[in-house]
Amino acid sequence: MSLLIIGSVAFDAIETPFGQTGKIVGGAASFISLASSLLNAKNGLVAVVGEDFEMDFIAELNRRGVDTQGLQVKKGEKSFFWSGKYHMDMNSRDTLVTELNVLGTFDPIIPDDWKEPDYVMLGNLSPQVQLTTLNRLTKKPKLVVMDTMNFWMDIAMPELKEVIAKVDVLTINDEEARQLSGEYSLRKAARLIHAMGPHTVIIKKGEHGALLFQNDEVFFCPALPLEEVFDPTGAGDTFAGGFVGYLASTGRTDFEAMKTAIVYGSCLASFCVEKFGTEALAQVTREAMKDRLDQFKRLIAVEA
Amino acid sequence: MSLLIIGSVAFDAIETPFGQTGKIVGGAASFISLASSLLNAKNGLVAVVGEDFEMDFIAELNRRGVDTQGLQVKKGEKSFFWSGKYHMDMNSRDTLVTELNVLGTFDPIIPDDWKEPDYVMLGNLSPQVQLTTLNRLTKKPKLVVMDTMNFWMDIAMPELKEVIAKVDVLTINDEEARQLSGEYSLRKAARLIHAMGPHTVIIKKGEHGALLFQNDEVFFCPALPLEEVFDPTGAGDTFAGGFVGYLASTGRTDFEAMKTAIVYGSCLASFCVEKFGTEALAQVTREAMKDRLDQFKRLIAVEA
Repeated sequence: MSLLIIGSVAFDAIETPFGQTGKIVGGAASFISLASSLLNAKNGLVAVVGEDFEMDFIAELNRRGVDTQGLQVKKGEKSFFWSGKYHMDMNSRDTLVTELNVLGTFDPIIPDDWKEPDYVMLGNLSPQVQLTTLNRLTKKPKLVVMDTMNFWMDIAMPELKEVIAKVDVLTINDEEARQLSGEYSLRKAARLIHAMGPHTVIIKKGEHGALLFQNDEVFFCPALPLEEVFDPTGAGDTFAGGFVGYLASTGRTDFEAMKTAIVYGSCLASFCVEKFGTEALAQVTREAMKDRLDQFKRLIAVEA
Repeated sequence: MSLLIIGSVAFDAIETPFGQTGKIVGGAASFISLASSLLNAKNGLVAVVGEDFEMDFIAELNRRGVDTQGLQVKKGEKSFFWSGKYHMDMNSRDTLVTELNVLGTFDPIIPDDWKEPDYVMLGNLSPQVQLTTLNRLTKKPKLVVMDTMNFWMDIAMPELKEVIAKVDVLTINDEEARQLSGEYSLRKAARLIHAMGPHTVIIKKGEHGALLFQNDEVFFCPALPLEEVFDPTGAGDTFAGGFVGYLASTGRTDFEAMKTAIVYGSCLASFCVEKFGTEALAQVTREAMKDRLDQFKRLIAVEA
């Protein structure tokens, strides 16, 4: 089914204990689109880049069946740029540079073909842009999934809560869930976030896996234990892209399907972290994905 | 089958963000015995306490079918005492007091009835005492499981490695696995620990669950997400007691059985942390355990 993706398409420069990059393709919607295109046939991207952007990447998205009619390319302007440095534990990072550039004035224009999508993935962006996107749809989607981060809690909490009230699924990391809810216990935090609107809450714990909460049900999916985590950038976006991409491919929105969707998301995220930026994800084949899903099944399967 | 348990039986005094206790019963072997007795019929305890110990607790163990012939009660001496304070995140703690008392001169005497146990659980103790215990057995057990902690790595690494070389299963937490192996990646750490002797390595990650490694296979079991973790003391010992108790009750030592055993261990640990010390674990009924195992199954079950 059709999946509308909105989020940043940008440049990153990353430093980890294993090395560093120059400017490479990054941005939430880049990872989401790559992940989703491995699972779902019909994906549409709404984003903005500057004239400096690497258009080969857009061509690659098109080859994968991602419709980029909604991608605005701003003449004479520069793409969003983020630079960060990861610490040895790979769980914490310092932001070195943030240049908003085209993202500072982003007005999300939805192509006519994409005003009635079945599924919507609101990648991490300003709550105002996320809200505008929802308001410009002409029909209520089957499922709206939203990702966000602590940055927006710090500077735009009222707007953030306004969007959260309108979505079905919120994906958020453990520290952010605690910040948003004011509760340390993740189980209590999830319940308070439910009360803000979303019927489903996914708490991402990085290398410690992810929790899916819906009503009183909880499902846990681990991260695949890897030999080495090379670059965690985009893992959360890839996870979200795999999650919503799987659901869109099945047309389902029930809890059982969401559990399987989380396994797909975790599986794709495990590829993402193996190389810098989008490199590993762009190389994933269906065979490699199937192998890794089998590894996941063995990782969590027990005798009845 | 018969399970020999060795470890500390002691007093703790605990402070958490939720409150503090006076002297209460603690010690690795106390938690292990309580957990194991919920699953396995024939358990024998080797430990030492002072004249000050709470003998009601020993009577309770006896009622649960734990044979305490191997428990030495030292006249005129005091039991091992540990006092600690947990920080807000419940993952880190400061030791306030450690009084070795009777543990400083502990010579583990194995009763004749217990010299040929089927299973052995070496709870956290000095490697020297763990080694002496193994040397005093007159027949090789089906399975020897060992728990230890960073304290022994700091002060007795050669002796520790000597015991590790003789056991089948090592249970250890994530930070300790990193310290023991010198590897940050837990997958690599597990492989290096395999090479030290144990065919199976279990890495405990507290609220983030546990990983079971054997050859190239990995199994992950989450911790049950709880409303509140009240006191983590003894959770790792309870986990180990549930693990080895389940195996002893089935007579199995294969990987599939170990996976189920880890689920039992995690399940019992989830009770342990709900109250101070051994209180919650001592109250667990078979019905409550069954209910919680069902919660675990729902937590990790996905469609095929």
